[in-house]
Amino acid sequence: MDYKTKRRPVIGVMGGARVTQDIIKSAFELGALIAANGWILLNGGRDAGVMRASAEGAKSKGGLTLGILPGNTKYEANPFIDIPVVTNMADARNLINVLSSDVVVALPGSAGTISEIALALKNAKPVILLQFTPGSYFPEYEENGLLMHTATPAECIEHIREIISRRA
Amino acid sequence: MDYKTKRRPVIGVMGGARVTQDIIKSAFELGALIAANGWILLNGGRDAGVMRASAEGAKSKGGLTLGILPGNTKYEANPFIDIPVVTNMADARNLINVLSSDVVVALPGSAGTISEIALALKNAKPVILLQFTPGSYFPEYEENGLLMHTATPAECIEHIREIISRRA
Amino acid sequence: MDYKTKRRPVIGVMGGARVTQDIIKSAFELGALIAANGWILLNGGRDAGVMRASAEGAKSKGGLTLGILPGNTKYEANPFIDIPVVTNMADARNLINVLSSDVVVALPGSAGTISEIALALKNAKPVILLQFTPGSYFPEYEENGLLMHTATPAECIEHIREIISRRA
Amino acid sequence: MDYKTKRRPVIGVMGGARVTQDIIKSAFELGALIAANGWILLNGGRDAGVMRASAEGAKSKGGLTLGILPGNTKYEANPFIDIPVVTNMADARNLINVLSSDVVVALPGSAGTISEIALALKNAKPVILLQFTPGSYFPEYEENGLLMHTATPAECIEHIREIISRRA
Repeated sequence: MDYKTKRRPVIGVMGGARVTQDIIKSAFELGALIAANGWILLNGGRDAGVMRASAEGAKSKGGLTLGILPGNTKYEANPFIDIPVVTNMADARNLINVLSSDVVVALPGSAGTISEIALALKNAKPVILLQFTPGSYFPEYEENGLLMHTATPAECIEHIREIISRRA
Repeated sequence: MDYKTKRRPVIGVMGGARVTQDIIKSAFELGALIAANGWILLNGGRDAGVMRASAEGAKSKGGLTLGILPGNTKYEANPFIDIPVVTNMADARNLINVLSSDVVVALPGSAGTISEIALALKNAKPVILLQFTPGSYFPEYEENGLLMHTATPAECIEHIREIISRRA
Repeated sequence: MDYKTKRRPVIGVMGGARVTQDIIKSAFELGALIAANGWILLNGGRDAGVMRASAEGAKSKGGLTLGILPGNTKYEANPFIDIPVVTNMADARNLINVLSSDVVVALPGSAGTISEIALALKNAKPVILLQFTPGSYFPEYEENGLLMHTATPAECIEHIREIISRRA
Repeated sequence: MDYKTKRRPVIGVMGGARVTQDIIKSAFELGALIAANGWILLNGGRDAGVMRASAEGAKSKGGLTLGILPGNTKYEANPFIDIPVVTNMADARNLINVLSSDVVVALPGSAGTISEIALALKNAKPVILLQFTPGSYFPEYEENGLLMHTATPAECIEHIREIISRRA
């Protein structure tokens, strides 16, 4: 008998630990839409900002959530993370966040989020910016289509769907 | 509404990439029993030995499997891994394997497996040896009960159940 | 007897593997000035671009050079690295680059360099941009003085000297 | 002009943070002999046990010392470490310790030291045990000559010299 898995796409959601209520709302909506599409949500797992809101959104639709934690204990995870991955590698876990995602979405954040966008692009991962226009550090990636701008969670989901179908 | 997750225990299964058929059989059985108990199986994810067999066992009972990969692509995972975590950190991922597990089981293996037993014990994770009697590097951990010896997958599962109930 | 070390400042030099001859020249000059000041030069160690040129500059003045390598062998280091540190952690070594430096200088580069600027700022390391104006991702760090702009190696060295004396 | 470095061998010294005075004395002696031979001493850098004593020994002969630190600050290093490498990767830095060493020496230690021996052997690094007979986890490596037993620092140094000359 064949028990092979049918792997579901993993969507990484990055963004700040301290963000506005508007962004919290978008992160929740994005997480809900990710789950509704049957995709796995991955984020940094901590109990704050975009990490908490996007995981809560995913659980509101019965999704599966994975949190890649910087510290040394699963108790650092927010209550909407099904599977905490404990790295004890601080910001080096940012690399794992993006390498483990099929598509990376970045909501507004600070230096940590920028490092994730940079590491994702360096490793040829598609990055979709959601309500985040942080400047123009990466012109070559905008030109080659790896870095995209979107204004709403729904628009973001359209891009993800398109990327996944293209790669399937 | 409350969407909080009810987190399932994560059982890490370590062991060699090249092992005997007897050990392959035990790894499969152990994976099947882990899934039958509703626990998540975590291992090193590659397509060989104990990693493949234990994941196949878990999928044979409809379990959920997580593979922490050393390389830079999910395509390194065996076909029974539901969620590949891509680290690109080589053997440094061994630390993530044990820190992310509630209990670590070690089947026969070589230096990689020994490093995981050592890192687990150093971080106070319970380690259950299954059909593996690799010497006596860790006498203090045998004395304090963190390191246990078992002869069959069923006996191993009893220990896991006891550890989980004690910590719940 | 007291054999305690008198530790020398470590200056991290980041920047692209493929850069213009003008930047190569600046990287060499910067490395030479770092060594002439008695500081240790740290960089990513590989045999290309800013990594090679800055190390060569430092050795031209008899300096000490440290290369934090992404791969699994010291043979990846350029011939001007005295001490290769072998991580086998790919881009996760970027975090080590900045955490091990007292001051980080960033010459022009692409996504890898941006990730290092971001990780440095997130960890409160002073970052001096040299002939590099990559946009404005980090306005709050420019305001609080952690992120500085300079146009020549000599100007950059003045900033380093000032930062080191302030922290001594 | 050619400024290429003439790289000096790097000898990694592993061992416990809490050890007997006899072992402290051996670690100091070993460090002194490593420096007297013109080799660089590398260790885990912290201010305890074998890490402190071996670095102090090396500095007593004017050697160069490198400490690969688990935490997020150079202030964790003992006062005999010339160059602190700050990883913030906890036990994952054990991999860097051994990959960056040309030869690894292991004095008595507990699970952390065992993990370093295991990671070294897995990566084909020669390991010399010094006054440490921790069992027989690694019979295949003893047979193929990668794992050696020695009783005194002087005997250990003979082995290092032999390994280095063979590989030069």
